[in-house]
Amino acid sequence: MDVTNILHMNGGIGKCSYANNSILQHIREEAIIRVYNSIHPRCLSIAELGCSSGPNAFIVVSEIIKIVENLCKEMNHKSPEYKVFMNDLPENDFNNIFKSSSTFEEKLSNEMKSQIGPCYFYAAPTSFYGRIFPNQTLHFIHSSSSLHWLSKVPEGIEKNKGNIYISNTSPLNVLKAYYEQFQKDFSLFLKCRAEELVEQGQMFLTLLGRRSEHQSTKECCYIWELMAKALNDMVLEDEEEDEEEDEDEDRMRT
Amino acid sequence: MDVTNILHMNGGIGKCSYANNSILQHIREEAIIRVYNSIHPRCLSIAELGCSSGPNAFIVVSEIIKIVENLCKEMNHKSPEYKVFMNDLPENDFNNIFKSSSTFEEKLSNEMKSQIGPCYFYAAPTSFYGRIFPNQTLHFIHSSSSLHWLSKVPEGIEKNKGNIYISNTSPLNVLKAYYEQFQKDFSLFLKCRAEELVEQGQMFLTLLGRRSEHQSTKECCYIWELMAKALNDMVLEDEEEDEEEDEDEDRMRT
Repeated sequence: MDVTNILHMNGGIGKCSYANNSILQHIREEAIIRVYNSIHPRCLSIAELGCSSGPNAFIVVSEIIKIVENLCKEMNHKSPEYKVFMNDLPENDFNNIFKSSSTFEEKLSNEMKSQIGPCYFYAAPTSFYGRIFPNQTLHFIHSSSSLHWLSKVPEGIEKNKGNIYISNTSPLNVLKAYYEQFQKDFSLFLKCRAEELVEQGQMFLTLLGRRSEHQSTKECCYIWELMAKALNDMVLEDEEEDEEEDEDEDRMRT
Repeated sequence: MDVTNILHMNGGIGKCSYANNSILQHIREEAIIRVYNSIHPRCLSIAELGCSSGPNAFIVVSEIIKIVENLCKEMNHKSPEYKVFMNDLPENDFNNIFKSSSTFEEKLSNEMKSQIGPCYFYAAPTSFYGRIFPNQTLHFIHSSSSLHWLSKVPEGIEKNKGNIYISNTSPLNVLKAYYEQFQKDFSLFLKCRAEELVEQGQMFLTLLGRRSEHQSTKECCYIWELMAKALNDMVLEDEEEDEEEDEDEDRMRT
C-alpha cells in the first residue's frame, strides 16, 4: 500500500485545504524567523502553553527548532541551545510528555539528517492565568487552542437552567458573564506574558472563535446544547435532582 | 503535651548531635551567601538534583530561599525572583512534587512573616549523568544523598555470585568494577555541572561514604549482605533458578 496516497495534506483551495490552513504555519514561521534574526540567542527559550500530553505535544516545538536549524545552516551559524518549557495544569499527564522528551533530540536529528543544538526540556505545571516564568526570560511563546478554557466558571450564570454552556435559550446575563470572564482572563494572560517575554521576543496564539454573531451557532457552541440535552436525559433517567445539572456549567469560552 | 520536649534537635556533642550535623547546614549557608554576595542575581537559578518526591523534596530549597531573603532584608535589597529546577529520573513521582509547589510561595511567606520573591518551579526529568541545563545558567546546584546511585550496573561483576552488591565474599574485580563505574559517573557529573554553573556559582553535594577501608563495613554495605541473604532464601523457597539472583546486582556505590 502506498501510504503517500492516503496520508497527504488536504488539497484544493477550500476551507479545509492545506493551502488555507498553512497560512497559520507561515505566520508562525515568520514570527520565529523574526525572533532569531533580531536576537541571535545563544540559548533559545521556548514555551508551549497548554501543551496537553500525547503525540501532539511536541509538534510545534519540532517545527520551531527545524526552522531555527535551517536558518543557522543558511547563515552558517552554530546551532543555539534550546530550552523548552512544556506548560499545562499540574493535573496534566506530564509523565507521558517526559517519555517522549528523552528521545526528542535524537529523533529530530535523524529527521533533519544533521545534529541539532542541544535541547533541554522542562515541565512548568501551573495555570497560564498567572505568572509561569521570571521577568524577560522567553524568546518565543506559543499556545494553540487552549485559551478558550477559562480560569473558572463565570459568576452570575444562575439562570442558565438546563444548560452547561451558552445555548439558544441562554439569557443575556449568561452571555455577559462568559464574555466578562474571558476578558478578565485574557487580559491577565497578556499582562503576564508581557512581563515574561524578552524585548523583540514573539508570541503566537491560536484561539477558537466564531464568525457568526449568533450566540449559539454551530461554529462553536452547538455541540454543548446537544451535550446538555444528553446529560439532561441521563439525569431524568436516574431521577436525580435538577440542581446537579446546573453545576456542570462549562469553563469554555468562544 | 508539650511537643517541644519531644520534637527538638539532638543535644550534646556526640555523633548524632545537632551541633555536629548542622556543620553541613553551615557550609551550605556559607555557599549560598557567597553566591548572592558575589552575583546579586535578579533571578536566582537553583537546581535540586535527585530531588525524589514527598515532603523532603522542598526542604533544602526552602532553606536556600530563607537565607537569601534574610540577606536581602539585612542589605535592604529587593528580593530576587527564584527559578527552581527539581531534577530526578523521568520515572520519579513529579505529580506529587507539583502538588506541593503550587502552595510553596504562600507557605514560605507565612513562615517568614513577610512576602518572599516570586518562585517559579520546573521539573527537569532526566539523569544527572548527562546535561540537564544550558551553558552557564545555574547559580546554585544542590544534591544530597543521590550520587551513590550509579548510571548503570557496572560491567565485569560476573563472579559476585549470590550477592547483590559488594560483600565480604566479593572478589577484587567486583570492587574494581564498582569503583571504576563511580569514577566514570562522577567525572561526567562534574564535567556537566561545570558547564551549567555560572561563573562564581556554587555547588553543594553530600555523598554517602565510608571511613573504614574494609570493603563490606557496617558503615555502608553491610545492609546489602543481609538483603542478599534474604533474597537468596526467598529464591530457594520458590525453587527458582540461581541465575535470577545475580541479575539483581545493585547500582549503588559507597
